Amino acid sequence: MALTKENVPETKVLAIASHVCYGFVGNTMATFVMQSLGCEVAAINTVHFSNHTGYCQVKGTKTSAEDIRNLYEGLTQSYLTDFDVLLSGYAPSAAAVEAVGDIAQDLQRRAEGKPGSFFWALDPVMGDLGRLYVAEDVVPAYKKAVRHADLILPNQFETETLSGIKIANTTDLANAITSIHKTYGVPHIIVTSVQLSSLGSSTPSGLMTVIGSTVRSDGTPRLFRVDIPALECNFNGTGDMFAALTVARLREAIFAAGPSLRNTKSWVSPDDVAPTDLPLAKSTEKVLSSMHSVLLKTMESREAELATTANTIDATGLTEEQLQFREHLRRTKAAEVRVIRNVDFLRKPTVVFKAQQWAE
Amino acid sequence: MALTKENVPETKVLAIASHVCYGFVGNTMATFVMQSLGCEVAAINTVHFSNHTGYCQVKGTKTSAEDIRNLYEGLTQSYLTDFDVLLSGYAPSAAAVEAVGDIAQDLQRRAEGKPGSFFWALDPVMGDLGRLYVAEDVVPAYKKAVRHADLILPNQFETETLSGIKIANTTDLANAITSIHKTYGVPHIIVTSVQLSSLGSSTPSGLMTVIGSTVRSDGTPRLFRVDIPALECNFNGTGDMFAALTVARLREAIFAAGPSLRNTKSWVSPDDVAPTDLPLAKSTEKVLSSMHSVLLKTMESREAELATTANTIDATGLTEEQLQFREHLRRTKAAEVRVIRNVDFLRKPTVVFKAQQWAE
Repeated sequence: MALTKENVPETKVLAIASHVCYGFVGNTMATFVMQSLGCEVAAINTVHFSNHTGYCQVKGTKTSAEDIRNLYEGLTQSYLTDFDVLLSGYAPSAAAVEAVGDIAQDLQRRAEGKPGSFFWALDPVMGDLGRLYVAEDVVPAYKKAVRHADLILPNQFETETLSGIKIANTTDLANAITSIHKTYGVPHIIVTSVQLSSLGSSTPSGLMTVIGSTVRSDGTPRLFRVDIPALECNFNGTGDMFAALTVARLREAIFAAGPSLRNTKSWVSPDDVAPTDLPLAKSTEKVLSSMHSVLLKTMESREAELATTANTIDATGLTEEQLQFREHLRRTKAAEVRVIRNVDFLRKPTVVFKAQQWAE
Repeated sequence: MALTKENVPETKVLAIASHVCYGFVGNTMATFVMQSLGCEVAAINTVHFSNHTGYCQVKGTKTSAEDIRNLYEGLTQSYLTDFDVLLSGYAPSAAAVEAVGDIAQDLQRRAEGKPGSFFWALDPVMGDLGRLYVAEDVVPAYKKAVRHADLILPNQFETETLSGIKIANTTDLANAITSIHKTYGVPHIIVTSVQLSSLGSSTPSGLMTVIGSTVRSDGTPRLFRVDIPALECNFNGTGDMFAALTVARLREAIFAAGPSLRNTKSWVSPDDVAPTDLPLAKSTEKVLSSMHSVLLKTMESREAELATTANTIDATGLTEEQLQFREHLRRTKAAEVRVIRNVDFLRKPTVVFKAQQWAE
């Protein structure tokens, strides 16, 4: 029995993000995705919600910053902190972001003298599509935390928020990434899902682009892009899937590059490595290929579920508004990402999307 | 790409049990195990602990009965209750056990008119080895709840507690199972890990036995046994692994038996089905074969980890007692069950342990 060939190198991850009972976002998504690629995952859950907020109604509780710190103390007192990677996502308050930052720095201190033995991937969850969906004091908390991260995965709005640069065209986007490298000293950046056509690029409008960069020793970015077809569906949790897959695949790519890079602080490749040869670029190719397959399968399952559940809503006594909301719930449920039964696409992606150098 | 051949039939599970950040017990074990066999799992976590209690120290919080009810209300208000199975484990108070019982009965009401469309597997976590480790009022709460369950998975102590029969020999054990079938109307019972040799049986002392039964229409048990070699290691979470694997494999065996059984209340086989031909017996064979392989691999990994971490404890300034506790922590960590990298043994067990009829 071939037991490990589809696994990434042994990786112990501390994952700090939200938990939902039903569906797949936050740690509920990230834990399964990383586990299915062979990573050991310890999860500190920052919220305990019944479902994701895309349903527009939710029940449950948020974890206080104190409880987050307390759980981490539980790990340290029993010597359970042998993590290779911290992946942090949604934190429900500025104090919670600070707690996560302190945990990251504690793990960094424990790894001192062993460069490359610990890596922090930070998803600075603040908002999307021009709108902040966290409290305003979360922004300065992230601006402090990001200085200690090895990799951040902001979307376009979060890139604007961190860089202070409003992104109206592709030059702005490149400048924002350069600025984040310089201002915060973050060595790896991936800007998830940018629509370049809306930024005046000649890229066809049916494509979404992921832009990544690993900094050079002189502070300049090494920019690459990977284009994928945009899908006509509003999924939740895809950012969390992207981040989780990136942790596993980046670690795999770093190991493939040999022991020297793995023992380098923040896994920053030598300056002569071209943008498209970066481990981050290789990892992004695999990540997006996995995701595209899983999301296509999700769309198929969604169509099937919507057909099965059509006309199942009893409209008796419902107002038009109530009926529309029931329909919204039905469609949101049908669009839950189908990771469980499509795990082979996570484990064995066929790489169809390739990284290209990006210079604007 | 063969995507689904290792999956059990589509199964949506609501899992209510404890969550630990580090290691594998409760829902942290059960969720991954069921997901890896292809089940969709919605998890309501009854505690949020840093680690399992085998470490003898733990930090974290317990979920109140009110919060458990509230999370379930979150699911119902968004129509997210299409569960085929409820698997319930540790609940931290009598009120929490009652909340779980109410959730089970609500799901049963929703399934009314569709026999077999919902199944409750209940692990009545109360104690072990002659000792109660929950508050005393949890016992009557379980005695009420068990009446609504389709399958229970007590250990020997819990079997004694529920039946009121002190088990000193194999006849007592058989009587206790018969009594639980009759008193509580529970159709399926599995008593996990009994040492028959200690009950005066001629079974060699190196064997552990699982005893199961599905009731006949006249209330008599159909008893079967599966023997496995006892392992010289104290693992945590094996009961949760057993329960989670049983949910998936029982469902598979029920589907294999054809549509009639699947549409029968509580999936109780016709009286002419022999004990060793019961879906519960077939499922237990697969479950124990998976578990034995995973635990053997865990013992190998444990030895390797203990060798690597030998002499890593700095004894300076530690009392003998403190040093012993550090050693306890080191050994407990090394014995965490290695499910992640041994997932193929979960997915594709080679059945080596066979069910035998058991009549004492």
